[in-house]
Amino acid sequence: MSRYLRPDYQTLQVYTPGEQPHDRKYIKLNTNESPYPPAPSVLSAVVSEVQNLNLYSDPNCEALRKAVAQRYDVEADQVFLSNGSDDILNFAFMAFAGRGGKAYFPDVTYGFYKVFAELHGVHYETIPLKDDFTLCVDDYRGHDGLIVIANPNAPTGLALGLDEIKTLLRDHPQNVVVIDEAYIDFGATSCTRLIDTYSNLLVVQTFSKSCSLAGARLGFALGSKELIDDLNRIKFSTNPYNVNRMTMAAGIAALSEQSYYDECCRSIIEARKHTIAELRKLHFDVTDSLGNFVFAQSHILDGTVIYQKLRDRGILVRHFDGTRVSPYNRITIGTPEQMEALLSALKEILEE
Amino acid sequence: MSRYLRPDYQTLQVYTPGEQPHDRKYIKLNTNESPYPPAPSVLSAVVSEVQNLNLYSDPNCEALRKAVAQRYDVEADQVFLSNGSDDILNFAFMAFAGRGGKAYFPDVTYGFYKVFAELHGVHYETIPLKDDFTLCVDDYRGHDGLIVIANPNAPTGLALGLDEIKTLLRDHPQNVVVIDEAYIDFGATSCTRLIDTYSNLLVVQTFSKSCSLAGARLGFALGSKELIDDLNRIKFSTNPYNVNRMTMAAGIAALSEQSYYDECCRSIIEARKHTIAELRKLHFDVTDSLGNFVFAQSHILDGTVIYQKLRDRGILVRHFDGTRVSPYNRITIGTPEQMEALLSALKEILEE
Repeated sequence: MSRYLRPDYQTLQVYTPGEQPHDRKYIKLNTNESPYPPAPSVLSAVVSEVQNLNLYSDPNCEALRKAVAQRYDVEADQVFLSNGSDDILNFAFMAFAGRGGKAYFPDVTYGFYKVFAELHGVHYETIPLKDDFTLCVDDYRGHDGLIVIANPNAPTGLALGLDEIKTLLRDHPQNVVVIDEAYIDFGATSCTRLIDTYSNLLVVQTFSKSCSLAGARLGFALGSKELIDDLNRIKFSTNPYNVNRMTMAAGIAALSEQSYYDECCRSIIEARKHTIAELRKLHFDVTDSLGNFVFAQSHILDGTVIYQKLRDRGILVRHFDGTRVSPYNRITIGTPEQMEALLSALKEILEE
Repeated sequence: MSRYLRPDYQTLQVYTPGEQPHDRKYIKLNTNESPYPPAPSVLSAVVSEVQNLNLYSDPNCEALRKAVAQRYDVEADQVFLSNGSDDILNFAFMAFAGRGGKAYFPDVTYGFYKVFAELHGVHYETIPLKDDFTLCVDDYRGHDGLIVIANPNAPTGLALGLDEIKTLLRDHPQNVVVIDEAYIDFGATSCTRLIDTYSNLLVVQTFSKSCSLAGARLGFALGSKELIDDLNRIKFSTNPYNVNRMTMAAGIAALSEQSYYDECCRSIIEARKHTIAELRKLHFDVTDSLGNFVFAQSHILDGTVIYQKLRDRGILVRHFDGTRVSPYNRITIGTPEQMEALLSALKEILEE
């Protein structure tokens, strides 16, 4: 830290991404990446842009916005594109809460929400999930501020239904409700079709997980034209060209490859079901995850011990500190072969 | 604008990027892009990353940081990488000024500085350039706040020498001095070698212009390890993976292609000299630009008239509103052929 850093940032607890070690080759089940490469046409789309890289990308992302709009059956001006969904969440915390504003989200959820809040001086309160990690939307009633819900939630994978989201939206007409659907394509029900009815709904999605483009950085938000205008106001005041040409081309190509990605998602869902069943045979408590990950607790070994013993065997999973979550590990769903390796390793570890 | 947008953002005047019209094919001399494509090896570097796009990019940008450090003969922890240099400037306004803080920059300079300041609630003051658009560093003495100087300046192209920058750094030991060297590779003297001596110096550069990667979005900053830590604190609180895999690969490849890019810069400098000489023959007032653009005023026709008449002829240049700059146009240096087309069009227009 320099002596020039503003005092309000000196105590920031930054977000810690999942580790990316280079000391050996790991089976990487720690950052909820897809185990499958992007669709074949992504390559040619990217290649065709490289010769144009001397020219700025389109700050309005028009072609990609139209493609997203077509896929989700909304208008292009109801679509916002940005450099990953974290970028959008950051803008949302600025635009709809901001310094001195308020925000509410679960105690067990994506760890970045509280970082955004702290960065922007937002007063936030975490609302505890129930003992089984389910979320009760009634617990948010009477709280006046930005509401941010990951659906399905991470790291639990538990999802709300449309009726519960409607209740949230109706209970908070004075507040923006952000539904972070990063993991929506693995089995939960999206609420994107509610954006025409609820002007306070902002749905955030990403190409990172189900479209195998985590390394390309592309997120989008759907909402009323007015909410999208607000996000653009922040974007055009920070980094108008924040989506680069190659990523835009990759995104457009990915949207044209629905059947390839549907098949990827089907494989991941199958592997998740199998993994959950096998973990339960090993006496793990496992949530009914609808994400591309499972959240599992052994009653025999501590979460940190399992994390470390898997790591020693070359398998990376994600362990979080915190009273409620530290008995658990979040395990990304990889290929069937990777999940067999995980399950074998866990059997070995438990039998030691 | 929605009714949910925070009041402090409701009056924001966002940055307006140079127009990117699609109605016809233009000779595009309006956004200071390089007329030359990226070096040949950029393509293969990008291609090799596409199959890994399902995996997140390295949030620490280690390989690219090392490559930049090697090029500029600094340590890797004196290098910060981000999604374009605007992204870095945005972080710098947050980290080193922030809400209620102060910032100083010239009245005629990159139009984004005041947008960053307004976004983050920074009280800024513009310090007038002299009548001939030169900057007198003594005018900054006694001003206590973040200082941001584009060198060479845009849209004038006029540059400070190292001694003047040293004066600024010595006069403001309590403040960060950002030297925005977006256009440094076209003839001005970089101050990057001062970062070991002056802990308050942050140098910002970009791959957009001299490396023909505007559409890839890659900027970097050099400064003391502590200043770089500060920027990382903001980055890891907003968007840790903000540089994507393809752009990182492109950047590393570009750094290995010094002779290709030196040749591109030489061509642009030659074309600039020729353009300035020819414009002066046409009785334009032209600044002694060291950027990849010229800033020119006709005494016969108004700046807006010239802009419009060039546009009608399929040539886009950049015209800015504002008392001091509206008589001028900023004209990006393209290929020799493009500059001949520009000069012919201007002759026609002046003879009409």
